[in-house]
Amino acid sequence: MKRKILAILLSVTAAVTMLTGCGTSSKKEVKNTEVTASKSTEGKTPKYVFLFIGDGMSSVQINATQVYRGNNTSGQIATKPLNFTGFPAVGLATTFDATSFCPDSASTGTSISSGVKTHSGVIGLNVDKTTKPESITEKLKAAGKKIGIVSTVTINHATPAAFYAHVPSRNDYYDIAMQLPESNFDYFGGGSIYKATGDKKDKQDAYEVIKSKGYTIANKKEDIQKLDSSSNKVYAVTPVTEDSGSMPYTIDTKDGDLTLADYVSKGIDILDNDKGFFLMCESGKIDWACHANDAMSAIKEVIGLESAVQKAIDFAGKHPDETLILVTGDHETGGMTIGYAATGYNTAFNILDKQKISYIAFDTLISKKKEANPNISFEEVMPMIKENFGLIAPGDADANVEANKPYVLTSYEYQKLQNAFAESMKKADQRTKNEETAVLYGEYDPLSVTITHIINNKAGIGWTSYSHTGTPVPVYAYGASSEIFEGSYDNTDIFKKLVDVCKVK
Amino acid sequence: MKRKILAILLSVTAAVTMLTGCGTSSKKEVKNTEVTASKSTEGKTPKYVFLFIGDGMSSVQINATQVYRGNNTSGQIATKPLNFTGFPAVGLATTFDATSFCPDSASTGTSISSGVKTHSGVIGLNVDKTTKPESITEKLKAAGKKIGIVSTVTINHATPAAFYAHVPSRNDYYDIAMQLPESNFDYFGGGSIYKATGDKKDKQDAYEVIKSKGYTIANKKEDIQKLDSSSNKVYAVTPVTEDSGSMPYTIDTKDGDLTLADYVSKGIDILDNDKGFFLMCESGKIDWACHANDAMSAIKEVIGLESAVQKAIDFAGKHPDETLILVTGDHETGGMTIGYAATGYNTAFNILDKQKISYIAFDTLISKKKEANPNISFEEVMPMIKENFGLIAPGDADANVEANKPYVLTSYEYQKLQNAFAESMKKADQRTKNEETAVLYGEYDPLSVTITHIINNKAGIGWTSYSHTGTPVPVYAYGASSEIFEGSYDNTDIFKKLVDVCKVK
Repeated sequence: MKRKILAILLSVTAAVTMLTGCGTSSKKEVKNTEVTASKSTEGKTPKYVFLFIGDGMSSVQINATQVYRGNNTSGQIATKPLNFTGFPAVGLATTFDATSFCPDSASTGTSISSGVKTHSGVIGLNVDKTTKPESITEKLKAAGKKIGIVSTVTINHATPAAFYAHVPSRNDYYDIAMQLPESNFDYFGGGSIYKATGDKKDKQDAYEVIKSKGYTIANKKEDIQKLDSSSNKVYAVTPVTEDSGSMPYTIDTKDGDLTLADYVSKGIDILDNDKGFFLMCESGKIDWACHANDAMSAIKEVIGLESAVQKAIDFAGKHPDETLILVTGDHETGGMTIGYAATGYNTAFNILDKQKISYIAFDTLISKKKEANPNISFEEVMPMIKENFGLIAPGDADANVEANKPYVLTSYEYQKLQNAFAESMKKADQRTKNEETAVLYGEYDPLSVTITHIINNKAGIGWTSYSHTGTPVPVYAYGASSEIFEGSYDNTDIFKKLVDVCKVK
Repeated sequence: MKRKILAILLSVTAAVTMLTGCGTSSKKEVKNTEVTASKSTEGKTPKYVFLFIGDGMSSVQINATQVYRGNNTSGQIATKPLNFTGFPAVGLATTFDATSFCPDSASTGTSISSGVKTHSGVIGLNVDKTTKPESITEKLKAAGKKIGIVSTVTINHATPAAFYAHVPSRNDYYDIAMQLPESNFDYFGGGSIYKATGDKKDKQDAYEVIKSKGYTIANKKEDIQKLDSSSNKVYAVTPVTEDSGSMPYTIDTKDGDLTLADYVSKGIDILDNDKGFFLMCESGKIDWACHANDAMSAIKEVIGLESAVQKAIDFAGKHPDETLILVTGDHETGGMTIGYAATGYNTAFNILDKQKISYIAFDTLISKKKEANPNISFEEVMPMIKENFGLIAPGDADANVEANKPYVLTSYEYQKLQNAFAESMKKADQRTKNEETAVLYGEYDPLSVTITHIINNKAGIGWTSYSHTGTPVPVYAYGASSEIFEGSYDNTDIFKKLVDVCKVK
């Protein structure tokens, strides 16, 4: 086959910060292993498989990141590609499940892990909600490979669960946690266990159960850093949590915190063996940020995912003919668009740079303030909005500084923020619930979601939903047999293609 | 190369209505030529090239059509693929231009036709707005191929113009029309000439000029049907127009009207010759419908595009190793999403079926009513809304019929519609213009855009903009050397790849 594109060296190099050891980062930017298309990988059976899932990530989230990092200074604009958008093979996968064109992570995770369409909310079970399809991870484990499951969100959340559990409802968190050690998989890493003692907090602690089944549980940075291929079965739990036990948002991560890239690096240390491995790595908080319509947090999560993918690319550089890397999303979240009615053809993504923390970190800040002063006024909150999101009230002394103009609230926006604050000050069960507030706030805190709406709209970003949407997702593939991931197909075909290339029918 | 996917017969068959001759349609559904992946076309030089551009069409518009036509009746839902989503090669192209991440059809058309990034609004000129890049159509004409340009919108609109003209502004409609005959291209078909006698109506009629340069102008159906390979240079103008001289929306098309598929069929009749041809075919009103946030009209346009693509697939069936078919979009329009805040994970695309006409056809109907009765009331207009869009007022006798429930306006929606009607009744220059109306109505008639918003939202479709947005567009390729259109690239690379495969450097 004369694939002229393959003759071209795709010099897509991510300028990510080099991690000199797990979690210890130097600020020096280095040239990482390049993504190079090669005919030599065609038809090869991958010994090492990396499957990266950006939860809630479709083309818009990916391109928003490329636009955010793009060049807008030299008079002629350009996007800056991500390392995985340079992969030679691209597919487009439909995401609908058995019951919805706007599916959820349970059903789509099951489609990817096990090749079947099932109900929204169902994990690892067929559409009858009873019988169990055999997942790619179970097949590969049976074939002798080591298996790793990593996620930024809780390890018993829908996407990671779809690769090791079988339950009729994604809300069966405790049951999912109980199935984790039953999988006998080799490495779990990232988020903690949600509801580790069950809904009523009356069950045996899930960590204890997992330990009793022969797993080492490491939840301190230094203990995680010591793990290696001799560690046997391992669960490396994030020492720092935010929002239901997940890893912190990249935007909220402190220097020295372990990142998704670290958990991939550590996964390679632990899983590497003569028979090969399969590592599923989910960046789950792209989805959470997009549910909340928080573009900056979502974009930083995509950048965090790219850094994690780079670890796989670097590994592939050492095993070029034996490594397959897939990067995809399970569905789109939020109905995000690069473009908004009031800004028309204009975008100004640099406005996002003033955002210092995620919506949830801001909610936490505000909650503390409210605790200290239950009658806090909007005027007292506005400086916090200014500090963390850069938005400036019309009457603020800084509003007249020329450089600040893009950040100054119009009277319309200011009014919206005041209304949202008033709603936010009400107890959750006393808030207005109607068709208008369903669109304005969804189920989110009215204040923080209005802040991110305003800053996003000013940047030229629109949102249509607080739920998932039904656009197909791209599948980027690199390395051994990556070429079979080209074309249009269904998300269940990702599983089928993996079974095919890994020869585990 | 072991591309196992190629061994599979992709039996994607469009159930389009068979056209037994140009414009004469029978209702019988037939099995068209199937899209079949074949290794035999790899690396082949295409003699016949079809480039279909869905203006404003990205993955959401395509998948919305697949969802609309999908199966929601057997208890387990499914999308129904379009013929071109079954093409074996898929790429993803970025669309930003030299000045905007939300580009326009002039700049993106130029990127596709000529391989350069230029300013929004500029056609066939480099970023200096002066020098002319040589377009793929000019190169192929010089190489001896026949060239055809077809569009549903006016033939001097941005996208078709980018394939034959070079002007600093897309608004230079008369200049563009003057360059049409200078191209010496062989076939123009579809929409009429916008402003054929210039902005001030003081120039020589463009049709006369074109005729004087040796073109046959056919603007009657029977004359168009008679055209064939002996017709020499031809411009086949739509006998029926709607909205600035474009072809009518598919949803507004009457039995017997010529369709986009007919203009492609006729193009093949005219262009077929020993040296081969290149046919650019634009479905331009996907964009216009999405600007107006009218989902049903947009979806019907995509279906019309699919029928046109089928003509090329049928032709390729006779010339399997020598035909290349590309289907892409130039950018996304409207920020369309399958999913909406108030409907969450639910969709009900069947609601769209009650829409009988496009927003613009409705505007025309209302205008006539207003002319007859300048003081027409909302209560008098509501029956027209019911008839053409299926929406039922809360107090309507039909509102209590169970089957009608999905179409009954909530009091919130009814109020929105009343407000929009009040705005709509004002003269255009007296309408409210603020940040709120920019989001609610854009520059559209407040009544019709509110109607389509409501029916779209009820169906589970959201919109964020009245302009173009910045998501990448898919590129579907089939036939000779289609494999080089796989992967991620920029829209300028579509030109470069065409130059490469057609060997016209």
